[in-house]
Amino acid sequence: MSIFSSCKFVPHAILLQPKASLKTPNQSLATVHCTKVVRNVNLEKLRHNYLFPEIEARALEHMKKYPDANIIRLGIGDTTEPIPDIITSNMAEYAKALSTRKGYKGYGAEQGHKALRKAIAESFYKDLGVKDAEVFVSDGSQCDISRLQLLLGSSVSVAVQDPNFPAYMDSSVIIGQAGDFLDETLKYKNIEYMTCGPHNNFFPDLSTTSRTDIIFFCSPNNPTGHAASHEQLTQLVEFARKNGSIIVYDSAYSVYITDGSPKSIYEIPGSRECAIEISSFSKIAGFTGVRLGWTVVPDELYYANKVPVIHDFDRIVCTCFNGASSIAQAGGLACLSPEGFKAVMSVVDYYKENAKILVETFTSLGLVVYGGVNAPYVWVHFPGSRSWDMFSHILNKTHIITVPGSGFGPGGEGYIRVTAFGQRENILEASVRLKNVYL
Amino acid sequence: MSIFSSCKFVPHAILLQPKASLKTPNQSLATVHCTKVVRNVNLEKLRHNYLFPEIEARALEHMKKYPDANIIRLGIGDTTEPIPDIITSNMAEYAKALSTRKGYKGYGAEQGHKALRKAIAESFYKDLGVKDAEVFVSDGSQCDISRLQLLLGSSVSVAVQDPNFPAYMDSSVIIGQAGDFLDETLKYKNIEYMTCGPHNNFFPDLSTTSRTDIIFFCSPNNPTGHAASHEQLTQLVEFARKNGSIIVYDSAYSVYITDGSPKSIYEIPGSRECAIEISSFSKIAGFTGVRLGWTVVPDELYYANKVPVIHDFDRIVCTCFNGASSIAQAGGLACLSPEGFKAVMSVVDYYKENAKILVETFTSLGLVVYGGVNAPYVWVHFPGSRSWDMFSHILNKTHIITVPGSGFGPGGEGYIRVTAFGQRENILEASVRLKNVYL
Repeated sequence: MSIFSSCKFVPHAILLQPKASLKTPNQSLATVHCTKVVRNVNLEKLRHNYLFPEIEARALEHMKKYPDANIIRLGIGDTTEPIPDIITSNMAEYAKALSTRKGYKGYGAEQGHKALRKAIAESFYKDLGVKDAEVFVSDGSQCDISRLQLLLGSSVSVAVQDPNFPAYMDSSVIIGQAGDFLDETLKYKNIEYMTCGPHNNFFPDLSTTSRTDIIFFCSPNNPTGHAASHEQLTQLVEFARKNGSIIVYDSAYSVYITDGSPKSIYEIPGSRECAIEISSFSKIAGFTGVRLGWTVVPDELYYANKVPVIHDFDRIVCTCFNGASSIAQAGGLACLSPEGFKAVMSVVDYYKENAKILVETFTSLGLVVYGGVNAPYVWVHFPGSRSWDMFSHILNKTHIITVPGSGFGPGGEGYIRVTAFGQRENILEASVRLKNVYL
Repeated sequence: MSIFSSCKFVPHAILLQPKASLKTPNQSLATVHCTKVVRNVNLEKLRHNYLFPEIEARALEHMKKYPDANIIRLGIGDTTEPIPDIITSNMAEYAKALSTRKGYKGYGAEQGHKALRKAIAESFYKDLGVKDAEVFVSDGSQCDISRLQLLLGSSVSVAVQDPNFPAYMDSSVIIGQAGDFLDETLKYKNIEYMTCGPHNNFFPDLSTTSRTDIIFFCSPNNPTGHAASHEQLTQLVEFARKNGSIIVYDSAYSVYITDGSPKSIYEIPGSRECAIEISSFSKIAGFTGVRLGWTVVPDELYYANKVPVIHDFDRIVCTCFNGASSIAQAGGLACLSPEGFKAVMSVVDYYKENAKILVETFTSLGLVVYGGVNAPYVWVHFPGSRSWDMFSHILNKTHIITVPGSGFGPGGEGYIRVTAFGQRENILEASVRLKNVYL
């Protein structure tokens, strides 16, 4: 076989390339070399683009159509407000010190700086028994979800809330847990979907939920904005313990809770033996671009064969990750000083005020609205409508980008998610536009 | 079944915990709850701790034994010299600007800032046809190796150089490509080991190498320090094309090349259809703690079914990663300005001078030494000795930490790796100690 063996086809991407990028001017498009590597069957199973890039693509299309439109982005939950100076100063100082003999540091511990692990344990888990060594600093919870999937492997069974943040399910598909996508149900065959809506107070009916190894659970929820109550989480922990399941609890929005709902799964007795918690500085401190988060794996969490889960997670972190950026970690530490925390919480309050304005706006249009009280997301119901239709309708009528609820799973059909992350003037302008068009 | 069902055992980790950490004072150790989640069989197959934490554990043990010893760390390849001010200033300014309305930015593109992708393409791949959009910015090549494994999945076959950087193999085991570890050979059953040593000028005998889907290839090599020649890499590319394989080429040490060997696999004709390149700012600019790297996936690289690999890698990056820290990216951009690059290359020259001193030292002891010319690693041969024995012997006699060659695979047995990353005074002191003990 010649080393210039070729596959007989004219791939679309090649056709779109400028000719200069082809190896030789005379090379025929039909003789392009392709490898014999079989595409990962799990990636074949992913149904569509990851949600947010898909929305971005549609936004770009809209901008081409309306080049003069002033678009307001209430789609991806992306922080907009400057980070308090006390935090960026600490990062800047840390960065500058890297130019000095005394301040230079190379590799840090893969699990994170000791001082930061301790500060996280003390700030978010006071009196909950979380030890510093159980806290693993990450570059964000989305990244740690994939590392958890590497930990768990393809053989575990998985449950997700429906609707849910797409990273849980997409990473399940990529690692090979999900099975085939079924067009009839719009669900992956091997994933247990726990429907959460107004009919069940956004908490799954556990009496009809099948046992799975892993239960992804996000509270306050993205996208519905619902914070599970102490009673609901107690049921969840009992369910997980009875079934020998592991809960992967995502508390990325816990600082937005205002009604006394639990901010951590470890507030629930018995959870240390059945729950991992992932969280993030992204929405606490505007670190979406800085990249910093953490995962807690309690010592008492064991596999069926009695090996502690923390042992394997430590191995994954050491092998597949090399620690979060040391500068970002310096920023995280500054966030958790008393002054730093006060400063970031004032930004959180600003977004909460935005959420109130959005709730009031959509309510005034006669719509039923959920979320927005314990979370920076407002979940608006359009009974009888399709989410992508409403997404397009709102975009076309008001130049406001939202997120179609169906992007979070079939349980999100008929809803749109609106983010409260935004500059106040834009939130107010969005409110005016919506009222003008729909009131 | 009770929700307080328990497994009947007294796990070691629990016994070591202070009593206060147990749920209730009267809780019996024999009634600890464990889940029914089966441990990932791939993690069962990992043979030992990840190499560097293992060395660190032995170093700590040594420090307990000799609390007054002045230990010199020539083990893990960790940069020691301050980062030039022009780069840290840029990071500090970027960080400070995050406190301003104008300078604040949230999520960046998952694939990296456009300007940085462009600068990487222009700085490292000038005239090699690499497009900006083929460059994916990462938080380091070790992290991207794991993301590549998520891309490839468990069904591909893999070849590694022997000896090799442990992240390739360990990540292969974790994703499920490696099969069982065989005690007789000290090799994983399903991995093709391509022995590289002085007998074959550190380049595998491809006539006896089995075809695999993936070939991990590191040049300049970690740990041997060998930079593959143009002729060797031409053979490798021809071999990959003939077999329809994908080369994952690790060029993390390319700036250390002094003898004109290729700095990128894309210098070899035909490589764009068969090679991915991973690289890193860690050893270019002392970014081991800052965390920044990149991966190039050419448009012309296709799976057997004609899907472009870049399509799936983009999906992995968007789903399993959220971009490198924006502050680190600002630092990377500063590295690639003319002044920045000149400044970081002067630090590279400093480490190269260290390497010369180490080569001279071990040579003067009558040992045969490889590497150190095109790489910051010196690969010292101790014929007839075991690597871990030499590691311990050197540590005990001189308080110098090295890396046992066998930690990089069976082909590294009889060698130790010594890093040239270090402060000059420590390198000189190490030289004196080694000569005093062994001359």
